[in-house]
Amino acid sequence: MITVHHLNNSRSQRILWMLEELNLEYEIIRYERDVKTLQGPESLRKVHPLGKSPVITDDGSGEQILIAESGAIIEYLMQSYGKKSSLITPETGSQEERDYHYWLHFSEGSLMPPLLLRLIFDRVKKARVPFFVKPITKAVADKVLSEFVNPNIKRLLDFIETSLEGKKWFLGDQLSGADIQMSFPLETSVARGLIDGNYPCIQSYVERIHQQPAYQAALKKGGKYDYA
Amino acid sequence: MITVHHLNNSRSQRILWMLEELNLEYEIIRYERDVKTLQGPESLRKVHPLGKSPVITDDGSGEQILIAESGAIIEYLMQSYGKKSSLITPETGSQEERDYHYWLHFSEGSLMPPLLLRLIFDRVKKARVPFFVKPITKAVADKVLSEFVNPNIKRLLDFIETSLEGKKWFLGDQLSGADIQMSFPLETSVARGLIDGNYPCIQSYVERIHQQPAYQAALKKGGKYDYA
Repeated sequence: MITVHHLNNSRSQRILWMLEELNLEYEIIRYERDVKTLQGPESLRKVHPLGKSPVITDDGSGEQILIAESGAIIEYLMQSYGKKSSLITPETGSQEERDYHYWLHFSEGSLMPPLLLRLIFDRVKKARVPFFVKPITKAVADKVLSEFVNPNIKRLLDFIETSLEGKKWFLGDQLSGADIQMSFPLETSVARGLIDGNYPCIQSYVERIHQQPAYQAALKKGGKYDYA
Repeated sequence: MITVHHLNNSRSQRILWMLEELNLEYEIIRYERDVKTLQGPESLRKVHPLGKSPVITDDGSGEQILIAESGAIIEYLMQSYGKKSSLITPETGSQEERDYHYWLHFSEGSLMPPLLLRLIFDRVKKARVPFFVKPITKAVADKVLSEFVNPNIKRLLDFIETSLEGKKWFLGDQLSGADIQMSFPLETSVARGLIDGNYPCIQSYVERIHQQPAYQAALKKGGKYDYA
């Protein structure tokens, strides 16, 4: 049996989606973010010292296996249960496999950091400070955003847009673990208004994700998800 | 022949280290960061649209293969050249393999983002602003650092420290791609003074990396590297 330690509005939503695509039975243990700090609850630390989500456990093989870190979970699920599914299992040594690994790492390694920076500096701009301080904190945040963060995000989104041109999914016609991993930052980008008319391929890609029956089933089970 | 597009003081240093551990012949094409902005040069964009480093090309199989993203490069090199080397090739389905994938993703997905945040907010604190503005920008940066960034970094380093206890390398007695991938953020942490007496295992781990003959050979070829 697979158990997903699931935090609302988090990266664990994509793991639920993957489990649905793989047609696997699973149990969800729910955790709620603190409404003010948006951090996960202390109880998640009992599951894994970092207190982050997703974490899954799988006792299907007799021993209890615990896995954290989305990319590692996707690798595990693909390897253990992917072959019987409609998700691509890339051939060893193929370009498809290199692309699979590329997007699997790119998602959290290259795309998420500037999105996180943008979120934090947007919060700095909106922070409640005395009115005479506001122009200063706003100017500092705007400087970091305009000189460093936003050009970086634009470059990343332009690159993704080009990569998706003429393609249904990142590896081609068939869904793969790379799409599962890429869904979260791209949904986040849509939700934050970053995906405008310049990005028709990303836009329709995210719509395509949301139309997947497995995605919708996962959403029902996972509950409220603001990025959807 | 393998070619490494190598940016000074960057994540590509670890790829040189890996190539040395694998006893492979390779060519280095060098790029220098802008002294002021610390960004890579425009010429890197001709190699890969994101203009980041490392990027490698390999034409050993007849076709020219181009790979970006450290984690994906490490996966590729392990798969193509790892079996003949002293690096661990984890057995499919083993705990070792799960750990390998975990640290491979953890390094850039979990550990680097808060280190990047810390670097940026430290720069905000030191930014040249009028003297009457300084206390405000400093207070804003200190608030983000103390409430969000630093506790997160502490949790991550505590976790790594515990994971390394009694171990020579992340997977045990033998070096693996996971160590290559983890070296950069841990060297960065040492260089920024984050690894104090509370982290003896991380400290000796980074020293152990620096004592590897292959590491030293890579350093000679790569040139100046501030994190070393």
